[in-house]
Amino acid sequence: MSSTTIFSPSSPSSSPLTRFSFSHKPSLPLDHIHFPSHSSNFNNNNSLLLRKNLRTMAVSIEKETPIAERPDSFLTAYDKATGGISSGSSSVRARFEKMIRDAQDSVCDAIEKADGAGNFKEDVWSRPGGGGGISRVLQDGAVWEKAGVNVSVVYGIMPPDAYRAAKASAAHQKPGEIPFFAAGISSVLHPKNPFAPTLHFNYRYFETDAPKDAPGAPRQWWFGGGTDLTPSYIFEEDVKHFHSEQKKACDKFDPSFYPRFKKWCDDYFYIKHRNERRGLGGIFFDDLNDYDQEMLLSFATECANSVIPAYIPIIERRKDTPFTEQHKAWQQLRRGRYVEFNLVYDRGTTFGLKTGGRIESILVSLPLTARWEYDHKPEEGSEEWKLLDACINPREWI
Amino acid sequence: MSSTTIFSPSSPSSSPLTRFSFSHKPSLPLDHIHFPSHSSNFNNNNSLLLRKNLRTMAVSIEKETPIAERPDSFLTAYDKATGGISSGSSSVRARFEKMIRDAQDSVCDAIEKADGAGNFKEDVWSRPGGGGGISRVLQDGAVWEKAGVNVSVVYGIMPPDAYRAAKASAAHQKPGEIPFFAAGISSVLHPKNPFAPTLHFNYRYFETDAPKDAPGAPRQWWFGGGTDLTPSYIFEEDVKHFHSEQKKACDKFDPSFYPRFKKWCDDYFYIKHRNERRGLGGIFFDDLNDYDQEMLLSFATECANSVIPAYIPIIERRKDTPFTEQHKAWQQLRRGRYVEFNLVYDRGTTFGLKTGGRIESILVSLPLTARWEYDHKPEEGSEEWKLLDACINPREWI
Repeated sequence: MSSTTIFSPSSPSSSPLTRFSFSHKPSLPLDHIHFPSHSSNFNNNNSLLLRKNLRTMAVSIEKETPIAERPDSFLTAYDKATGGISSGSSSVRARFEKMIRDAQDSVCDAIEKADGAGNFKEDVWSRPGGGGGISRVLQDGAVWEKAGVNVSVVYGIMPPDAYRAAKASAAHQKPGEIPFFAAGISSVLHPKNPFAPTLHFNYRYFETDAPKDAPGAPRQWWFGGGTDLTPSYIFEEDVKHFHSEQKKACDKFDPSFYPRFKKWCDDYFYIKHRNERRGLGGIFFDDLNDYDQEMLLSFATECANSVIPAYIPIIERRKDTPFTEQHKAWQQLRRGRYVEFNLVYDRGTTFGLKTGGRIESILVSLPLTARWEYDHKPEEGSEEWKLLDACINPREWI
Repeated sequence: MSSTTIFSPSSPSSSPLTRFSFSHKPSLPLDHIHFPSHSSNFNNNNSLLLRKNLRTMAVSIEKETPIAERPDSFLTAYDKATGGISSGSSSVRARFEKMIRDAQDSVCDAIEKADGAGNFKEDVWSRPGGGGGISRVLQDGAVWEKAGVNVSVVYGIMPPDAYRAAKASAAHQKPGEIPFFAAGISSVLHPKNPFAPTLHFNYRYFETDAPKDAPGAPRQWWFGGGTDLTPSYIFEEDVKHFHSEQKKACDKFDPSFYPRFKKWCDDYFYIKHRNERRGLGGIFFDDLNDYDQEMLLSFATECANSVIPAYIPIIERRKDTPFTEQHKAWQQLRRGRYVEFNLVYDRGTTFGLKTGGRIESILVSLPLTARWEYDHKPEEGSEEWKLLDACINPREWI
């Protein structure tokens, strides 16, 4: 699989909203892994062998088992199963796994340090179908009421549910068995203080092999992800800082990235029945393969590395701001919107819930508490109204 | 439409879970109005005229407008639009509307009386496509934190979204325009005290005309509904009393009703990703047309009338029971499950959210507050565990 650096340009998806979602649900509450309609295609001499070996591991994707110790790499078992043909330490798979596991460590360290009281609880699990994951959750800390940071590295044969769903909105996809590899990090951080914003980020890498009944068909790979901010109150300097850090990461690679992924984020986190976005956005991209694979790996790494500098300074400024019961009630109403988005629209969550998986990992994205008041309307011109207005009419922050 | 007493027996749906849901969303947060795969069929000489007149009223189902005063009947405008051909005061439509509006009045009166402090706020609205509704919500009372009791009476042409969804899981349905009539009452009552259970009930009546492109095709009618109890703690006498009242109502009509509808309820309120029911059940039925129409109208009336005697005595017993923070936290976790069921599975809610409608009415079913803790497991043998066990393994209560 070190041959995956072969590059073939193609049209990217223009919108994330019209695409099928396949999620390797066992661990990724927030990952949205999608079949591309157009992806980079490459052939590999070993693909038949790989497919054959992977197929022997095809079992229900619905079961996962806790394991006592986290392995150095989830790819070791993969190598064993496939004859070690595709995951040398220099492969994109191996480097992506290292990147997300490093990011999990550094984000958890930074959160614990900023929290000062809470500690992450770790659950390591493996999936009989192939691969596994590490879920870390900090609950009821001093600063965060719930913070989840999960990684997973899974592979095997796509389950029938995924085929059918894929077929529904990507009609050209063959319904045969498709070997896949998926790795990702996903995180939602919900602070207690209503002036401190919630952060979500997720970065993922996906490969599929040729379908079983079309051995000559192209293999595909793509990157997806994003980082977005969901405050209950707007502090212009916070939102500007956050978006600036996203732009800085994007600009190192392509000046078109930030405007394109900023809009993609506004489009994705849309609560249609409310005509509101979940929050104030950030960046979001999916099915990305129309750039050099090495470049996209570096880009995903840069994005993951900018989570801490984009978020922690905001938390430091807001975590101890005094607040009233009214401020808290408004935060709780916005948390209700977060629940609505995640349970009704988020493709990784909804697909994960429908096809099984590690429910506690999937739903760690939900806030500790949320609130729904009948027909609540903030007073025009109030601070609450300003936030709502920015969720209805996305702004350019920089 | 007084000819709707014509009766033609047919097989009812065996399970509510495999069926398409069409909801006249503007008002019914909890109504699940489904296309029958087998329904009573009847012809009506006036159906062509009815269809023609109704079609002129076909506008987006997505808009509704508040109106100042509730009309004596939402059918008056219907008569006007259709030339008064189908809604005399003796029609099933007219009598069903009267029944649900009487039930709304009596339930709201009983709730206000038992609450002692809160009052219902009323919103009346009309739907440009035809019909309207009355939403009543009591929030932050002494006993209930949120209580919604809504009625709606809507008619018109089924929107394209409904056709498509209907076609997906009821392949024999023609995709042409289908005039419909739907009326229902729906209610969710969430008390404050963690020992006082949440109640949901919903009763509805539906008619469809022949599809536009198949004028000779059969017309259909059916009844649906149910009443179910969702406590956070089990008091055997409460659950037995509640189920006994449901059985009493059922037994007046058919001894097979209670066991059949009790099981249907356990099957419907199933949170698949948790392998739990939302609560301790009650009765649920849908697409019911394999009995005399007059008999089913009486049955729905009896069910609606048994809401107060089934529920209020339980509330009187539990509303002032002292509780701890731990009891409240457990109630909040169960409220989280309520949110998960309603947003992920409830067909009326999910269809309503996807196709527009009066969102505040649809989501009044959500609790005022809810909670999600990572990997919460009640201690085996505890009172919390007993409730969870009964949600996982439905029991026979009488």
